[in-house]
Amino acid sequence: MTLFDETVGVATPGETVRVRLVVAYDGRGFRGFARNEGVRTVAGTLAAALERVLGHQVTLRCAGRTDAGVHAWGQVVSFDAALGTDPAVLQQAVNALCGPEIVVREAAVAAPDFDARRSARARRYRYTVLNRPVPDPFLAATAWHVAPPLELAPMRLACDPLIGEHDFSTFCRRPRVRAGAPEPSMVRRVLEARWVPLDDGILRFEIEASSFCQQMVRSVVGTLVDVGLGKRTAGEVAGMLRARDRAAAGDLAPPHGLCLWSVRY
Amino acid sequence: MTLFDETVGVATPGETVRVRLVVAYDGRGFRGFARNEGVRTVAGTLAAALERVLGHQVTLRCAGRTDAGVHAWGQVVSFDAALGTDPAVLQQAVNALCGPEIVVREAAVAAPDFDARRSARARRYRYTVLNRPVPDPFLAATAWHVAPPLELAPMRLACDPLIGEHDFSTFCRRPRVRAGAPEPSMVRRVLEARWVPLDDGILRFEIEASSFCQQMVRSVVGTLVDVGLGKRTAGEVAGMLRARDRAAAGDLAPPHGLCLWSVRY
Repeated sequence: MTLFDETVGVATPGETVRVRLVVAYDGRGFRGFARNEGVRTVAGTLAAALERVLGHQVTLRCAGRTDAGVHAWGQVVSFDAALGTDPAVLQQAVNALCGPEIVVREAAVAAPDFDARRSARARRYRYTVLNRPVPDPFLAATAWHVAPPLELAPMRLACDPLIGEHDFSTFCRRPRVRAGAPEPSMVRRVLEARWVPLDDGILRFEIEASSFCQQMVRSVVGTLVDVGLGKRTAGEVAGMLRARDRAAAGDLAPPHGLCLWSVRY
Repeated sequence: MTLFDETVGVATPGETVRVRLVVAYDGRGFRGFARNEGVRTVAGTLAAALERVLGHQVTLRCAGRTDAGVHAWGQVVSFDAALGTDPAVLQQAVNALCGPEIVVREAAVAAPDFDARRSARARRYRYTVLNRPVPDPFLAATAWHVAPPLELAPMRLACDPLIGEHDFSTFCRRPRVRAGAPEPSMVRRVLEARWVPLDDGILRFEIEASSFCQQMVRSVVGTLVDVGLGKRTAGEVAGMLRARDRAAAGDLAPPHGLCLWSVRY
């Protein structure tokens, strides 16, 4: 492995290993995960560090393409690296370049067919709400401050209709598709959705699904907080889902309360 | 009370109430607490907001003059405001101007002789160390990341000689004094000093004293971490204190791990 080699080539196929990283990041400084020319993204920053350390180009696959400002604790990334790459050395070198804003928590050689995106069976997100009259400087980066008191019981009831397989068009941003291309499916299977009250007015929303469509968690949380504020009732949620219409949902919750927590394989 | 009045006068003596605030702040964006022309400080920012809301000048007294980059959860501040000031309205208006970087957690009218500095009987600071091989993006603002494993037992033993009344010259920055002025005393009474291990490699140092001299907690923590790393022994600490010489102490721990936690009156 070449450390800090400025010459960036391409690893020769057949002479590579598949590497799996578990990555945490503070999303505030990034325009989302996905590489995007001209803007600072997590994938762009991480790939640049990996390429500098490995001395060859890398193509990253990820478990969840988090939006601008969204955090991750357990994002999973896979890519091919030159044979002989030591994951522990790679981890340390990348953390020295990117940390503590982006941190590689784990690094290992994976099976050759491991794909951080396709191999994932389920993703879990956490959304944190701070429900206190006054904000908290130390939670400002990771929790949505909602000052008026929230009623937890209807917020919990409102989770029930989300569980199971549904068309989530109401709660998702429809991706742009080329003319003539088939409409992508918004059907997703939610395995768990619940509110966990913690100390001092901190409310944590946990949601696990096979996969998520864009802005789905933030749209669901915005709607559930509306229920907690009494602007909507828990009974309306099933009808919102059936409407398959974005206009039926509440406003988006802000990105900084959201965190891609873990991925199951 | 005048809200957002641009004319700043002085409250007439005899027609004022003494106000007591409990204030939290993220210290990273400030050159310390104390007002200082030309630099951004907590007192400067807070006083400007208070003056804008009250419509008259204020002179802040505080329980602890935290250094640049040091946080507070329970800083206490007192000042005089025009008679009729509603502390709840003041709190809300100041939080709208300064939050969430500076947050007024509590606001109340105090006894006329209450002085945030002189009335304080003890101050409690917390210092957080993250002792894990890899850093954490979400603790980067509030904990000192120490990667090599720390031995907690000697760090705890090393706290014992600090308890009680001692001359802390070894662990303090001597303030500049005018020529001919008497040397200020560095004698302080430490009521408690202990390490509390929390989950996942988080170590919390709690220290309470009648008052602290400048850089005292960071100097003590730097020395105790040296003990945990095996660079010094717990048995050396008593001798360091007796030396009354700054060169005898370890390096300063960084400011972002430190937080003025609470004040007793």
